[in-house]
Amino acid sequence: MKAIGVRDGAEQAELMEIPKPDPEAGEALVRTLRVGVDGTDHEVIAGSHGGSPEGEDFLVLGHEAVGVVEDPNDTDLEAGDVVVPTVRRPPNGPNRYFENDEPDMAPEGQYYERGIVGAHGFMAEYFTSPASKLVAVPPELAAYGFLVEPISITEKAVEHAEASRSAFEWAPESALVLGNGSLGLLTLAMFEQRFERTYCLGRRERPDPTIDIIESLGSTYINSNDTPVPEIPDVYEAPDLIYEATGYAKHPFEAIEALAPNGVLAALGVPGDWTFEINGGRLHRELVLHNKAVIGSVNSNVGQFEAAVESLGSLSEGFLESLVTGIYGLDEFAAAFDDDDTTIKNAVQFSTYEKR
Amino acid sequence: MKAIGVRDGAEQAELMEIPKPDPEAGEALVRTLRVGVDGTDHEVIAGSHGGSPEGEDFLVLGHEAVGVVEDPNDTDLEAGDVVVPTVRRPPNGPNRYFENDEPDMAPEGQYYERGIVGAHGFMAEYFTSPASKLVAVPPELAAYGFLVEPISITEKAVEHAEASRSAFEWAPESALVLGNGSLGLLTLAMFEQRFERTYCLGRRERPDPTIDIIESLGSTYINSNDTPVPEIPDVYEAPDLIYEATGYAKHPFEAIEALAPNGVLAALGVPGDWTFEINGGRLHRELVLHNKAVIGSVNSNVGQFEAAVESLGSLSEGFLESLVTGIYGLDEFAAAFDDDDTTIKNAVQFSTYEKR
Repeated sequence: MKAIGVRDGAEQAELMEIPKPDPEAGEALVRTLRVGVDGTDHEVIAGSHGGSPEGEDFLVLGHEAVGVVEDPNDTDLEAGDVVVPTVRRPPNGPNRYFENDEPDMAPEGQYYERGIVGAHGFMAEYFTSPASKLVAVPPELAAYGFLVEPISITEKAVEHAEASRSAFEWAPESALVLGNGSLGLLTLAMFEQRFERTYCLGRRERPDPTIDIIESLGSTYINSNDTPVPEIPDVYEAPDLIYEATGYAKHPFEAIEALAPNGVLAALGVPGDWTFEINGGRLHRELVLHNKAVIGSVNSNVGQFEAAVESLGSLSEGFLESLVTGIYGLDEFAAAFDDDDTTIKNAVQFSTYEKR
Repeated sequence: MKAIGVRDGAEQAELMEIPKPDPEAGEALVRTLRVGVDGTDHEVIAGSHGGSPEGEDFLVLGHEAVGVVEDPNDTDLEAGDVVVPTVRRPPNGPNRYFENDEPDMAPEGQYYERGIVGAHGFMAEYFTSPASKLVAVPPELAAYGFLVEPISITEKAVEHAEASRSAFEWAPESALVLGNGSLGLLTLAMFEQRFERTYCLGRRERPDPTIDIIESLGSTYINSNDTPVPEIPDVYEAPDLIYEATGYAKHPFEAIEALAPNGVLAALGVPGDWTFEINGGRLHRELVLHNKAVIGSVNSNVGQFEAAVESLGSLSEGFLESLVTGIYGLDEFAAAFDDDDTTIKNAVQFSTYEKR
């Protein structure tokens, strides 16, 4: 069968021919519909993140997939079910995080990630997965099912952020998303339903398709060239929740100060080393005297995938259409990995869904 | 009646004669037993924190009090009840934080603090307080009741830290207290009951009374001159919880890295401005990839005072005796404000408790 992978050191995605997998006990065989492309894929291709399975010299890409159950193989699934696979798989040997259904909390080195590190991904005509790691999606959401994984990342971050504020009556009204990439925009659309006022910070100038999306959601675009994060409280307001999806290492530290009293910052970016100056005394004092919180969040669990399916269903068709730049077939898959200022979200299509 | 206060600009505590207060409706009159002295009192005396009530040129000190109800004044209290007052009082006009019984979450400027900012404290022979802000203490704990307020500070910080970890099955085993002042040692004694392994960091050399206390609790003393915070994971272990009670502005940033995966830092210090370099990229990445959390915490509410009464009752008499350096009568009150390396915790005694 056909797959899209990257050979060690090649720094380029390529079409490969690999054997069609056979499901083991407890696993189902899934026919792939669509698989999204995100920044992590670009890092994996560049070789700056992740790696091939042990003993192999290539990695099948893709961790944002949606597919149709082809062979339930004695699991509780049924042929024709639309499903989304979770990403992390257990290491060899027992692991308490996987036993607790909290693979997202496993420390580095205690997991594989399909399509990212140590396990082949979902960019193939078929994949197998334990049925327990396949989350059902209503058939009418099949076309956008590849967005469930990124949405689940936000579900987890928000769950942890809200938990951090659960010891008192938190009444947030405003939220700021740092970053107008596809994850930032998906998050903004979710926040529009949950907060009275939302803001999204980016560094693009008009005209720009992401600014159009932000404004059509009813949110306010903040151009960081005009209003950097530290000035947001004065120019707009101090947000109750700040969601960082830029990977810009100064943002979390600037955000601690920009937060409203009792506010929380959810950090999601994964920057490289960068040493810079901060007024650590002021940050420390501000954190304490105003009861602020910061949570870091990575990955997501089955429950958060299920919440993401609900959230996906609540997003408007118009928003989803504007978010997706292109859906590319295998004959033009390379275009899905192009990344310029006009690209918001691409996906590769492996097959089409037809309701039975 | 006699009171201990500080006149504006005097930078020194003095014995004063002020009128005995009359309780208003809803208030009780309390005869003061003992009032503890802490770092905040020293800052208030020095004029670097807090301030006198509006229109007055002095502030009665003291926010860590225990007393006996002298006149219940038609409240639900009874004469002879041993009580501890909370610290924050509402500003003029309605305030949602006070209405929710969460004055500890009120932003700066939306509260007075008795003995600290805008309201006279408890270092007087008598004080009045709304009955709703007086927390009952079992008579057998009267002698150490002045420790309820500092313990409540830790109850709140731990409540918020645990809340931040409540979205998953957190199974902490180890805790590190940064700071071996009286709050650090009280917290360490509480942590000894809750964690399998505890550590306390200070910068004192042996022989030192706080090191003796730390070791008699069964905890491990870490001398920061030998093992600074960033080296603790290698030399000891990466703690699941770090509690910062030093006010040293580099500690929170060092602690984020020193934490175990999924760990939480509770920050309580209130440093002045201090600009320094951090590897913000590494910190940001570490926070995210290991799902870490940071919470800032200040003050405490009635529920946390009640939890503190429970905790006080669980601490051993031997520990409490070793913690309290001196109890000084009004004739020698100045000694209670002496602060050198042999002082752990002082209190001023205004009257003695006799069981009815």
